[in-house]
Amino acid sequence: MSNSSCDAHPWRVDESSFSWDGPGIAESVFALANGYVGVRGTLDEAQPSLSPGTFMAGVYECHPLSYPEESYGYPEHGQAIIGVADGTAIRLQVNGVPLDIRETPPEYHERTLDLRSGTLRRETQWVTPAGQRMRLVSTRLVSLTQRSVTAIRYEIEAVDYAVHAVIRSDLVVNGTALRVDNADPRVAHALEQPFRSWFGRCHETGGLLVHSTRGSLIGVAAAVDHDVHIPEGGHISTHGDDDQVITTVVADLRPGEKVGFTKYLCHVRSSDDDPADLEAQVLAALDGARERGWEGLTADQQSFLDRFWDGADVEVGGDAELQLAIRFNLFQVLQASACLSRAPIGAKALTGSGYSGHTFWDIEGFVAPTLTLLYPEGAAHLLRWRASTLETARERAEVLGVKGASFAWRTINGHEASAYWPASSAAVHLNATIALAFNFYALATGTTLTAINGFDVLIETARMWASTVHQDDDGLFHLFGVTGPDEYTGVVDDNVFTNLMAQRNLKAAAAACEAYPQHAERFDVSPLEIGTWRGMADSVYVPYDASLGIHPANERFTTYREWDFATDPGAYPVQEHAHYVKIYRRQVIKQADLVLALWWCFDAFTATQTARNFSYYEQRTVRDSSLSATAQSVVAARVGHLDLALSYLRETAFIDLRDVEGNSHQGVHLAACSGSWLALVSGLGGLRADDEQLHLAPRLPDKLHRIAFRLRWRGQRIGVDTTRSGTTVRLLDEGGQKVPIWIDGTLRVLTATHPVTSPLIVPHPTTEPPRQPPGREPRD
Amino acid sequence: MSNSSCDAHPWRVDESSFSWDGPGIAESVFALANGYVGVRGTLDEAQPSLSPGTFMAGVYECHPLSYPEESYGYPEHGQAIIGVADGTAIRLQVNGVPLDIRETPPEYHERTLDLRSGTLRRETQWVTPAGQRMRLVSTRLVSLTQRSVTAIRYEIEAVDYAVHAVIRSDLVVNGTALRVDNADPRVAHALEQPFRSWFGRCHETGGLLVHSTRGSLIGVAAAVDHDVHIPEGGHISTHGDDDQVITTVVADLRPGEKVGFTKYLCHVRSSDDDPADLEAQVLAALDGARERGWEGLTADQQSFLDRFWDGADVEVGGDAELQLAIRFNLFQVLQASACLSRAPIGAKALTGSGYSGHTFWDIEGFVAPTLTLLYPEGAAHLLRWRASTLETARERAEVLGVKGASFAWRTINGHEASAYWPASSAAVHLNATIALAFNFYALATGTTLTAINGFDVLIETARMWASTVHQDDDGLFHLFGVTGPDEYTGVVDDNVFTNLMAQRNLKAAAAACEAYPQHAERFDVSPLEIGTWRGMADSVYVPYDASLGIHPANERFTTYREWDFATDPGAYPVQEHAHYVKIYRRQVIKQADLVLALWWCFDAFTATQTARNFSYYEQRTVRDSSLSATAQSVVAARVGHLDLALSYLRETAFIDLRDVEGNSHQGVHLAACSGSWLALVSGLGGLRADDEQLHLAPRLPDKLHRIAFRLRWRGQRIGVDTTRSGTTVRLLDEGGQKVPIWIDGTLRVLTATHPVTSPLIVPHPTTEPPRQPPGREPRD
Repeated sequence: MSNSSCDAHPWRVDESSFSWDGPGIAESVFALANGYVGVRGTLDEAQPSLSPGTFMAGVYECHPLSYPEESYGYPEHGQAIIGVADGTAIRLQVNGVPLDIRETPPEYHERTLDLRSGTLRRETQWVTPAGQRMRLVSTRLVSLTQRSVTAIRYEIEAVDYAVHAVIRSDLVVNGTALRVDNADPRVAHALEQPFRSWFGRCHETGGLLVHSTRGSLIGVAAAVDHDVHIPEGGHISTHGDDDQVITTVVADLRPGEKVGFTKYLCHVRSSDDDPADLEAQVLAALDGARERGWEGLTADQQSFLDRFWDGADVEVGGDAELQLAIRFNLFQVLQASACLSRAPIGAKALTGSGYSGHTFWDIEGFVAPTLTLLYPEGAAHLLRWRASTLETARERAEVLGVKGASFAWRTINGHEASAYWPASSAAVHLNATIALAFNFYALATGTTLTAINGFDVLIETARMWASTVHQDDDGLFHLFGVTGPDEYTGVVDDNVFTNLMAQRNLKAAAAACEAYPQHAERFDVSPLEIGTWRGMADSVYVPYDASLGIHPANERFTTYREWDFATDPGAYPVQEHAHYVKIYRRQVIKQADLVLALWWCFDAFTATQTARNFSYYEQRTVRDSSLSATAQSVVAARVGHLDLALSYLRETAFIDLRDVEGNSHQGVHLAACSGSWLALVSGLGGLRADDEQLHLAPRLPDKLHRIAFRLRWRGQRIGVDTTRSGTTVRLLDEGGQKVPIWIDGTLRVLTATHPVTSPLIVPHPTTEPPRQPPGREPRD
Repeated sequence: MSNSSCDAHPWRVDESSFSWDGPGIAESVFALANGYVGVRGTLDEAQPSLSPGTFMAGVYECHPLSYPEESYGYPEHGQAIIGVADGTAIRLQVNGVPLDIRETPPEYHERTLDLRSGTLRRETQWVTPAGQRMRLVSTRLVSLTQRSVTAIRYEIEAVDYAVHAVIRSDLVVNGTALRVDNADPRVAHALEQPFRSWFGRCHETGGLLVHSTRGSLIGVAAAVDHDVHIPEGGHISTHGDDDQVITTVVADLRPGEKVGFTKYLCHVRSSDDDPADLEAQVLAALDGARERGWEGLTADQQSFLDRFWDGADVEVGGDAELQLAIRFNLFQVLQASACLSRAPIGAKALTGSGYSGHTFWDIEGFVAPTLTLLYPEGAAHLLRWRASTLETARERAEVLGVKGASFAWRTINGHEASAYWPASSAAVHLNATIALAFNFYALATGTTLTAINGFDVLIETARMWASTVHQDDDGLFHLFGVTGPDEYTGVVDDNVFTNLMAQRNLKAAAAACEAYPQHAERFDVSPLEIGTWRGMADSVYVPYDASLGIHPANERFTTYREWDFATDPGAYPVQEHAHYVKIYRRQVIKQADLVLALWWCFDAFTATQTARNFSYYEQRTVRDSSLSATAQSVVAARVGHLDLALSYLRETAFIDLRDVEGNSHQGVHLAACSGSWLALVSGLGGLRADDEQLHLAPRLPDKLHRIAFRLRWRGQRIGVDTTRSGTTVRLLDEGGQKVPIWIDGTLRVLTATHPVTSPLIVPHPTTEPPRQPPGREPRD
């Protein structure tokens, strides 16, 4: 475990606290977003930079996917998120010399992301080559309450000498090209200049640009205005064309004098509306922003975040860095979803273009539960988007030769964009994760599935499973030729995780149809079909290796050759040093698979099996995926290895702040961010909610003296506070309903007036602390 | 079964006997080659044409292979055979009107491939728009004795009126671009104009071109000369540049007068020599051709083929078409190999650019045995080429994480060029097929493995198997995550064919090392290593489904869901109508897999098992590969279903003459061509040679009254002649050694003076004639 710096501010991420390698990580960590629009955390003056840009959820371009060997049902088109018109650049010249911190190391330079105010503040003081001391303060926000609005407060001061300052503030389309790694030149061609400009307009203090993607035909309008304060003699002017709006502020500053402005940026998108509509919408958004003004926008931001933290905050006693990291991670989850609408949440949300902006099953698996318990509105938006792709998923099911619906492994528009079927179309488990995210939302919020269009998602995924499973001579139902979450073990038979998740999907669909027979009838679900689902679910085959006393991740897994960590390539990730033909049938695990089943399908395993399974897989799991540590942390906690649980929790929590995977410059790892909260509350807190009631089993590792968290359960806020003295659970809303809650297996009833307390249990694990593969100890 | 046209000439393929769809099939069927150079059977006047061209074995260009999702060990470069300088075009104008049979339907038009003279003769008579009757006779050969030489005898006659004739005879490089289906534009870029010209020269009657590929740096020189006979007043002239040599013959013909020439074309290739060397080599070849002259070349051709047929001919009494087809197919096998040197035999040999000119394991599996028994020199060339790729195969083994060597699934230069690993790198069985082809050559010719550089091939493949197999708790050796010959069942565990072939590979390597201990020592093979190979071979796991009494093609195959031929897409090939994710775990078989094991590893199965297995797989095999029917024919014969055996034999035999697969325009299916002979002698003839002795078990279907074939066994020619009266086996060479031979299980001894006779056995099959999937009855 790294030394915790005890002076970590509990709510602020300061750049100076970290030593990031290159500007890319700061661009991701300091990205601001609201689920509708996101801006990378590039410096105002645009340099140094790795990949600046502004993204909008659901704004992507298509490109050809070509295969050296084609086959039936391979997707023909990829999708990639693209940078929209970017207005973050504000370039400064002082007496003809541009501000560039690489050329002129500043006397003082700090950037701070404030998780309570929802702003990124930057302060830089430097001395120009001619000796004039200057100070720049800028504050940036992407509004969590007005989805189109980004605002930047920018101000410079001539500290000790008179200077001539020129500030150039941009809004530019097609100016932030993605790095396209694809060797097919047609991909770069499609993505390099993705927008066709409709028109641009400008006036003295700003202007607007309206454009549309060439292939996917998505219209985008961006508008900018500046509310300036200029000393006498200075002036502002704007020029531009269809691709850019450039506003220039010129001022002579006397010592101590300042010049600056509030820059309002607005973005709207639509696939339906014509350019004139887009123009009207973006101007309306701009009017709204100016009307609130900088003070109003920051007040709204603060107030929105106050409400969020009031129901979501986490306190970690004894580890200030971890405390900050989890808050940062929850901020990312909120940023990804606050104003989400009719678009997916990408694996990197709107903080970068990693994974081409695609969403994966991990969003439903690792982000939706957190949102459901902390910000249900965000979960609802996310799930409604997925439900909106149901028709596409039905078409895909037909291509794959199954009934019902089969959702895309990676996508922005709902269509499958994965080019490698053994790790996508074969990873059929994703459908269960998606379906059960809907189910959990309804359960935890106390609303109905139909509110999030989830009823038919459950039915159609159940139909997919029913047409995929195969009843063997043993009378049990099998799933052959699938790939589980562990992508180092592909195209296998009877993956335990997949089989158990299919079982739960079938049961949930049956239960929903039984609870709402009129809906079931509308979807032509007969009692016979429901009975079939239940029968299949009850007879799902779960392989077990009796000689080892553990569950093979899939049939025969425990008979595979062991990975020879001593002489086989020891470098990680394994997939970059060994061929699939070798990896697929070795006992080397990329990411929690059976261990994920121990968490998500915990009731399929006895406590002894859970402990033995965890030990077995721990020695074989290399965590080459950032998704892994969360599950390992949760299960480590549940089997009583609290130090290990904390280590994995820290690894997950610092995934981006410490660039654990070395690729945070592509955007934050949203699922792992969310996973750090799940590791805390589901692992150390022991939270479960599977049988429609809340369960807790709080544990405290030696290094922590307190864990407190909050969550929303069926409309009420609940606070859980664990110290060495025990756990107190409170209803945080006055006049609330009573809530039954299980603590360490005992049913208690929580009311607004009566908190519940319970002593802290110190676990006595039945297994030794497990070892990891060499070089894959927790990176905490 | 189609009606046999009883008037099929026994040695001639006449175009008029077939109704091919478009000019492409004739271009393949009438292609002439010698294993070094090959020319497509395009008409002299170059039109109508689908894809004309001249190919040379081993002359290819590289191109990028790019993947939408890259992974470790994926090949980065593809290879594709490319057309070299083409000299087949001889265009004719009569009184200013070009000969084009599409414009002016001829009075008479016939092309004939003569399998005894090894020539393609063409005769056309037509009346020009102005009413002059003309006759054109041309004869083409690619010399089977002088590898560089193609010769064309071309002559026209003005039958009834005086005409002015202009004949333009070309040699052109970069003139026959391939159709490039790859969507990646860089592939087309690499292949469209593959040659860079070094220089060209010409003189009055011909010239030469020297050039080299841009990427693979293979030098090619082509030279042309014309030996003309021109009526008085006519003349010949040649002009050209670095890319072409154009010879023009002009003559005024009186009625009954002729003009024509012999065109000598020579090609040489080298990766090492400089342009001046290439020029000298090609001119020497041209001198050699002119020195022999047309009469000499045709006499050599005839004499070479007389010798070949004398040791290889097949007679089929009662089916004249089948008789012709098998001779045509043997001619293809000979054409592919006669002058082969330091290059592979592609799946289409030199008759077309299908499969990019790549060689596959089926060449060793289905062509090498035929060559070994009929034209061992060709087999030796083929195997020596494969042995020359051993170092590359060692490098590939390292990438795949195994020891020893792993040969390429598809290649021209030895490097893996397959872009889809589940059907290539996972199809590890190919290594056993290759190794055992070396073993069979040594066995059948009575020479040593070292003569074909096969010793280390056996050792290195055995080492690959030894490092790939995995000993399980049952003490048996398993192979996990492989793909067998059946590409509709991918990435499976314990494929029976693969396991049995690995076993044989290990045993053969052990036996070779024991027989030649000094070689073994040179390759550091210790007695311990040999013992390990034998131990592994003895303990290979072979799955068996006791309840069904059959062998699952791989572990659990018989528990997969059945393919629903009624409601699942009924269209073939299945892979164009269903996704791999569905196909891979269904009981639908693309091509003989377990059934191939019944043939190649027959001693692993009892007679009852063979019969039951065949019936089971017959109902599930859709023959979406042209390789399948051969194995099905052989096994059908062995289990006594002789009518079915004949039906599959005919399907295989007519694969190209009747364009059974609809893709013969891309070149002939060489493995299936060779397979038709194997189906005849190994199936109906019951030929086996596995325990170092010859075995026969001749059978006659009702529709045939005689089968006679010849083969070479340890340097001696043997003739087998089966009629209803029984079988006679003769040594065809005087003064030969005595040969032990088993006929229907009885050991006999054959000497030059004493033929062996045996009565014909009529089988009584223990199973009903099996049924095929709907729509996949034999296409005979």
